[in-house]
Amino acid sequence: MAPRRKKVYEGKAKILYEGTEPGTLVQYFKDDATAFNAQKKAVIEGKGVLNNRLSEFFMTGLTNIGVPTHFIRRINMREQLIRQVEIIPLEVIVRNFAAGSLSKRLGIEEGTLLPRPIIEYSFKNDELGDPMVSEEYIAAFGWASQQDLDDMVSLALRVNDFLSGVFFAVGIKLIDFKIEIGRVWDNDFMRLIVADEISPDSCRLWDTKTGQKLDKDVFRRDLGNLTDAYTEVARRLGLMPANTTSLKPTAIN
Amino acid sequence: MAPRRKKVYEGKAKILYEGTEPGTLVQYFKDDATAFNAQKKAVIEGKGVLNNRLSEFFMTGLTNIGVPTHFIRRINMREQLIRQVEIIPLEVIVRNFAAGSLSKRLGIEEGTLLPRPIIEYSFKNDELGDPMVSEEYIAAFGWASQQDLDDMVSLALRVNDFLSGVFFAVGIKLIDFKIEIGRVWDNDFMRLIVADEISPDSCRLWDTKTGQKLDKDVFRRDLGNLTDAYTEVARRLGLMPANTTSLKPTAIN
Ligand SMILES: Nc1ncnc2c1ncn2[C@@H]1O[C@H](COP(=O)(O)OP(=O)(O)OP(=O)(O)O)[C@@H](O)[C@H]1O
Ligand SMILES: Nc1ncnc2c1ncn2[C@@H]1O[C@H](COP(=O)(O)OP(=O)(O)OP(=O)(O)O)[C@@H](O)[C@H]1O
Ligand SMILES: [Mg+2]
Ligand SMILES: [Mg+2]
Repeated sequence: MAPRRKKVYEGKAKILYEGTEPGTLVQYFKDDATAFNAQKKAVIEGKGVLNNRLSEFFMTGLTNIGVPTHFIRRINMREQLIRQVEIIPLEVIVRNFAAGSLSKRLGIEEGTLLPRPIIEYSFKNDELGDPMVSEEYIAAFGWASQQDLDDMVSLALRVNDFLSGVFFAVGIKLIDFKIEIGRVWDNDFMRLIVADEISPDSCRLWDTKTGQKLDKDVFRRDLGNLTDAYTEVARRLGLMPANTTSLKPTAIN
Repeated sequence: MAPRRKKVYEGKAKILYEGTEPGTLVQYFKDDATAFNAQKKAVIEGKGVLNNRLSEFFMTGLTNIGVPTHFIRRINMREQLIRQVEIIPLEVIVRNFAAGSLSKRLGIEEGTLLPRPIIEYSFKNDELGDPMVSEEYIAAFGWASQQDLDDMVSLALRVNDFLSGVFFAVGIKLIDFKIEIGRVWDNDFMRLIVADEISPDSCRLWDTKTGQKLDKDVFRRDLGNLTDAYTEVARRLGLMPANTTSLKPTAIN
């Protein structure tokens, strides 16, 4: 572990430390996995290393196409420097195929193609279990303005088009994903940027041919070894040697 | 060659035949390569097979994310069934990095990242050498309405986000590309869809690490074997056996 520095926040999957420059944070990826609002817990060796690298990869790609993100640079196997944002307390979920809670609530079989991408929001509040909320709720309670919502939808749809391309290229279907969005100020100009993480913890990823799950559902539903699934995603994206089948992190900071 | 059927159009790179059902066409990909408004010509063995397969791949991915295209299904190594459209007589060019005519006209070094994606239009007219035109010209001459232009920009930017993701996943930079867009009518409702082809003939593709060109510039500028370059693109996208280095089409229809 790096030397003394101030811990800003410890969540279920990540720790935030004060960054080196003002307005930055260090995001440390833990191996902890939780599901169902932390009722199910485990430590999964290597998950933090993989998510740190994968989130760097996706955020870098988004930056390249002009979608602003909090990512500044990776520091080591488990840490990346990010721009500090004021998080909008919403999970922005984009769904291309039915799965998870949508399937359960509407009785639509998992894997069914949706008529078009559907965006939905959860209010980020662990005590309440991150309840689903409508745009009406969001505007009325002031979590985001109507302008923010329009900008968030544009961002989310661009992220969806880009990530759909990334996964299409490597034989994976992007079923759905969740992002968090935050506010930053440049001089007095406020902008929204993509924050938190993009990783198999926050996406549903199915192998196109076999339907095999390569995401956190492997943990939620006890479908096998989570690290192997995430390693397979990283391997297909050229982030590990082609013959790697299981990650043995040799140097964990 | 398939039996007697009506040739609708023969262009420099493709032939269009009447399709099996009304409103469809068969698009046959030739091996002919041309550049500089057909002043430079060659027959490049295997190019048609590769472009047919690659255009299928990109169009299928776009269809998956809800970007409408003319692609219906591949028929054989060189042919695909497409929906007949009324082509809007414009090449819609999207540029992420400076290259080609933009670099020459503005004196910006090839490979320079542009401040944001830039869309430009050429009027499709071989005698005139496909001159660049502005939105003002397009609306004034009635080649497309302002509404069409808005829709074309949205389509082009979504294609750019998606293709940027596809190529990012396999270590390739999407420098720029060109699409053609056409009108179709469903009942009385007119829509714009992506037509023609998406292939290394219509994109600039640079290897991210080495900068090696994997597109038609290899032919335009005599940089090596074009089929090898296109094969490398197809290989990275999982469209050929991993050990393929050069395409030897065994069954050409
Ligand atoms: N760039 C950023 N600036 C400030 N906070 C951020 C940034 N990116 C992510 N965060 C916040 O950091 C925390 C990351 O920790 P973690 O994901 O482990 O939390 P969690 O246990 O999932 O709780 P939460 O429900 O808040 O996400 C989250 O609260 C997230 O909103
Ligand atoms: N779905 C479609 N329906 C009708 N025409 C199409 C469709 N897709 C492409 N086309 C047209 O088919 C022709 C394809 O041939 P090719 O690309 O070889 O032409 P070309 O020699 O490049 O000439 P052009 O300058 O017209 O493209 C083009 O004119 C293109 O506009
Ligand atoms: Mg979280
Ligand atoms: Mg053409």
